[in-house]
Amino acid sequence: MLASRAVSRNTASAHDAAAVPADGDPRIGPTAAAPRGAAGAEAPPPRSVILVGMPGAGKSSIGRRLAARLGLPFLDADTEIEAAAGLPITEIFSRYGEAHFRDGERRVIARLVSGPPVVLATGGGAFADAATRAALRRAGTVTVWLKCGHATLLRRVVGRGHRPMFLGADPADVLQRLMAARHPLYAEADIVIPCTDESPDATTRRVQEALAAWAPPARLPVALGGGRGYEVVVGEGLLARAGALLASALPSRRVAVVSDAAVAALHGPALRAGLEEAGFTVAAEAAVAPGEASKGFETLHRVLEELLAAGIDRNTAVVALGGGVVGDLAGFAAAVALRGLPFVQVPTTLLAQVDSSVGGKTGVNLAAGKNLAGAFHQPRLVLADSATLRTLPPRELRAGYAEVAKHGLLAGEAFWGWCERGGGEAAVAGDPAALSHAVLESCRLKAAVVAADEREEAAEGGRALLNLGHTFGHALEAECGYDGALLHGEGVAVGLGLAAALSARLGHCAQELPGRVMAHLAACGLPARIADLPRPFSAAALMERMRRDKKVRDGRLRFVLLRAPGDAFTASDVPAEAVEALLRDEGCGE
Amino acid sequence: MLASRAVSRNTASAHDAAAVPADGDPRIGPTAAAPRGAAGAEAPPPRSVILVGMPGAGKSSIGRRLAARLGLPFLDADTEIEAAAGLPITEIFSRYGEAHFRDGERRVIARLVSGPPVVLATGGGAFADAATRAALRRAGTVTVWLKCGHATLLRRVVGRGHRPMFLGADPADVLQRLMAARHPLYAEADIVIPCTDESPDATTRRVQEALAAWAPPARLPVALGGGRGYEVVVGEGLLARAGALLASALPSRRVAVVSDAAVAALHGPALRAGLEEAGFTVAAEAAVAPGEASKGFETLHRVLEELLAAGIDRNTAVVALGGGVVGDLAGFAAAVALRGLPFVQVPTTLLAQVDSSVGGKTGVNLAAGKNLAGAFHQPRLVLADSATLRTLPPRELRAGYAEVAKHGLLAGEAFWGWCERGGGEAAVAGDPAALSHAVLESCRLKAAVVAADEREEAAEGGRALLNLGHTFGHALEAECGYDGALLHGEGVAVGLGLAAALSARLGHCAQELPGRVMAHLAACGLPARIADLPRPFSAAALMERMRRDKKVRDGRLRFVLLRAPGDAFTASDVPAEAVEALLRDEGCGE
Repeated sequence: MLASRAVSRNTASAHDAAAVPADGDPRIGPTAAAPRGAAGAEAPPPRSVILVGMPGAGKSSIGRRLAARLGLPFLDADTEIEAAAGLPITEIFSRYGEAHFRDGERRVIARLVSGPPVVLATGGGAFADAATRAALRRAGTVTVWLKCGHATLLRRVVGRGHRPMFLGADPADVLQRLMAARHPLYAEADIVIPCTDESPDATTRRVQEALAAWAPPARLPVALGGGRGYEVVVGEGLLARAGALLASALPSRRVAVVSDAAVAALHGPALRAGLEEAGFTVAAEAAVAPGEASKGFETLHRVLEELLAAGIDRNTAVVALGGGVVGDLAGFAAAVALRGLPFVQVPTTLLAQVDSSVGGKTGVNLAAGKNLAGAFHQPRLVLADSATLRTLPPRELRAGYAEVAKHGLLAGEAFWGWCERGGGEAAVAGDPAALSHAVLESCRLKAAVVAADEREEAAEGGRALLNLGHTFGHALEAECGYDGALLHGEGVAVGLGLAAALSARLGHCAQELPGRVMAHLAACGLPARIADLPRPFSAAALMERMRRDKKVRDGRLRFVLLRAPGDAFTASDVPAEAVEALLRDEGCGE
Repeated sequence: MLASRAVSRNTASAHDAAAVPADGDPRIGPTAAAPRGAAGAEAPPPRSVILVGMPGAGKSSIGRRLAARLGLPFLDADTEIEAAAGLPITEIFSRYGEAHFRDGERRVIARLVSGPPVVLATGGGAFADAATRAALRRAGTVTVWLKCGHATLLRRVVGRGHRPMFLGADPADVLQRLMAARHPLYAEADIVIPCTDESPDATTRRVQEALAAWAPPARLPVALGGGRGYEVVVGEGLLARAGALLASALPSRRVAVVSDAAVAALHGPALRAGLEEAGFTVAAEAAVAPGEASKGFETLHRVLEELLAAGIDRNTAVVALGGGVVGDLAGFAAAVALRGLPFVQVPTTLLAQVDSSVGGKTGVNLAAGKNLAGAFHQPRLVLADSATLRTLPPRELRAGYAEVAKHGLLAGEAFWGWCERGGGEAAVAGDPAALSHAVLESCRLKAAVVAADEREEAAEGGRALLNLGHTFGHALEAECGYDGALLHGEGVAVGLGLAAALSARLGHCAQELPGRVMAHLAACGLPARIADLPRPFSAAALMERMRRDKKVRDGRLRFVLLRAPGDAFTASDVPAEAVEALLRDEGCGE
């Protein structure tokens, strides 16, 4: 696989694939659509490498060495700017001021990265400019921050009189102030290399190793109406990079984190560190008790009081760190605090990563039923860090997988086939590549459905299709009393089998589909039939639960049925007798 | 005035104005922009009169007599349909079915009312058709329901074999079913005439009197982005017509009413009757305790549980009947119940009619401050019934007027001049025409501001302008502790004077403007200066309150200042010293 990725590059001469040294491959990990290590991953296009950092960090000396090792041209942005302007940088500064210089710098850098890949050393202020950062992101470059300490930098810059910012000032003070202002912005670089006083060659080797190991997180755009939209970012270790990933999606570097106590203990410190690295202030950290009981009005009220007492303003984003309960609760709090704050989902369970974090549904339970109060409030970004799934109990991972299987059935043979042909089993076994693929493809399916019917207003189909298996699943869950005896995903798994069986009985799909669905779910360690559940059910009681389901319209039972994987539809004309007969045949009592 | 309204009409011959008998005037009340009796009211255009009702109600016999009295042509819709189709109606029904007939009927009626005014008798099913009702509304006709009892109707229709709906069935049963189905739809007519067995001439005279007395409610469209929008309907006795007015604005004839106990006792029965007349089901009536304490999370939670326990669905509208507390609370409940229900404002205080009911801001208070949790949730309709203002305590009416004066200052010399030249004093004295004008013009100003900046996102100006006088007003209110010692409007009144004084001190407006503002507010019985309030204030304490105001951005005090009536702007560069000096000069202590 590695050899096959090293087929060509945009340097002057073509190389034989086998002759390219592995460490000379400038292509940095797989593309978004093909997770690292997944079967069939294509070679990504080569990227320009941009070195950023303080004056004296060694961007030019390391950049030259790196370019030689990668077989790419080396360019120095400051040199190119001087050439373009016909003036030394000190002159541009003194004649026209910094704003003018940054404009020119931005244009020159955008031009340099628009062509074939290069290694580019930038001036110390370049990456501190938001528009330049955005241009480098858009151009698909990989940015590397050479992060040096104050003492090292000071030693290197003393006496370099041509740097305009040190003219007539104490370099130690200037450096200190610049570092405080710029480090949070440099932190948005894709790769951070802590630099010491080792030789430039040693640092260059570490940069090259980091580039070879680096995989960009997969980014899935979710389009909404009116030009709105957001991205779902899926990858390993995203918490540690949270600030860098959030900065361009939020109006300010100020957040309030809502989590549950268990998740906060596991992942709170990593998230906070990742935020603070990019200069974010964590204005509040509200923790609720783990479990469904926290998804209620009292907890919502308490969280709101905590956030407002902490002095959040309209530009403070609410970050939900946790599973579905935390996401729904924090999202609702964000929707109503000051009549709407920016919101970020950081889902830490498979269920939340593949389902509740995408789509903008937020809310809490009432005594009258689940999710009866809430708001549609779309996140500005969803950060699905695959590493957080490693801390999940296996049963919870499997239960979350039931929604993946549902998305597979809704998406069609490609995704469903992947599930059946070992993808699902690998995912529930914790295989990182399989989990990333499952999360990404689930979000892709859900994003497409949500884009077409954001507020669940479609008369037929639309968001309602996401309820495949849920009419049965909710009834089973409700009968079990939400006490953990039956997890939501387990109810959905049995519900998927029943929905397929009902579809087959009514003649909508092939007779073998229910068997395929049930066999797959069982292979993934999920209950696939009512008989797999450790308690008996009454058909009459389940029917009664379904009649009181939120999805009931005009008193008629509504089901999502299948014609085939990828071909689901909503039906409100299913005879109650057919449903009850199925439940009895599946082993339910009176 | 009455004579000047009878200037011309669209009949074959022109009459001398003075020669037209008063009871022959087919123009039915003033237009929306000119409330009945207000100075300068123009003659409204003549309207066609449409008679609707059950078979046997006398639409044709009364229609002919009415047309003769009004000097208008008389037309019978059924005759016109038969002429257009070249077939008797029974034949059209039996050959093509009812749906086909209704289509033709709708087209013929739309044609008949598109020309010069007529008196038109419709078939019994015509006004039961939603599209025909909408066409008659759009054409600006006035519709009159001749409402007969079952016994009278039965006597009249027995033996009339040509009516297709009675063929081969028991007329008593058919009538009963038809009445149950159609009366709620007939109730949408502009005028309802209960009919007895009196002579047709006597009924005709009553219809004519009702037409002469009828004034259409004023309708103000509020345009929002994306083609959304709603109407503010202002008029006398709207509660009794609530169902008729709401029917076309809502997805179903099912509502839940939220009110406070005091308002519910005064106006609840009239609203319920008005809703039920048009076939609305009142699924729930939730009453909260009167007063600001109800605008909190506990009450919101209780109201939501009540609504959901009553089995409301996504098409059930929440109707807020009351003042600002009820409107904000019920609107927020509507925004979050089932993630958003249709919402209707029925404001019963002047403050709510001129301010809080328009604009879509809903919410509750938190311990951390007022209105800190909420949603933007626009109503489908605002019904401002002027009659409800008669039950207001005079002090509350005056306090509500402060927001009218604010709107006058924001709108410009036309509205502000009306306020100053006696309009304001008439309004606070309870004059119905003045109150209607004040409500309508206030809503017009607010609607224009909200349309331009629905979610208060404008960096400067926009919705923030509606805070004229409020930075000071909120600080005064907060110092008084929201215990009723200082009403919100009283705080705003003093705040308006202070805002004008501050504007003059900073050289933005004419030096005489503060005096004009204060004199007008005092003439309306409102406190106009800090010295008018029955307690001392500390300048330092007020400054501290203002620094903690929600409107503060980046720690800087924000004020709305005036250059002149109609020319306000937001300013965040007002020196704190200037504000503090003003407060001291106005009599505040340390």
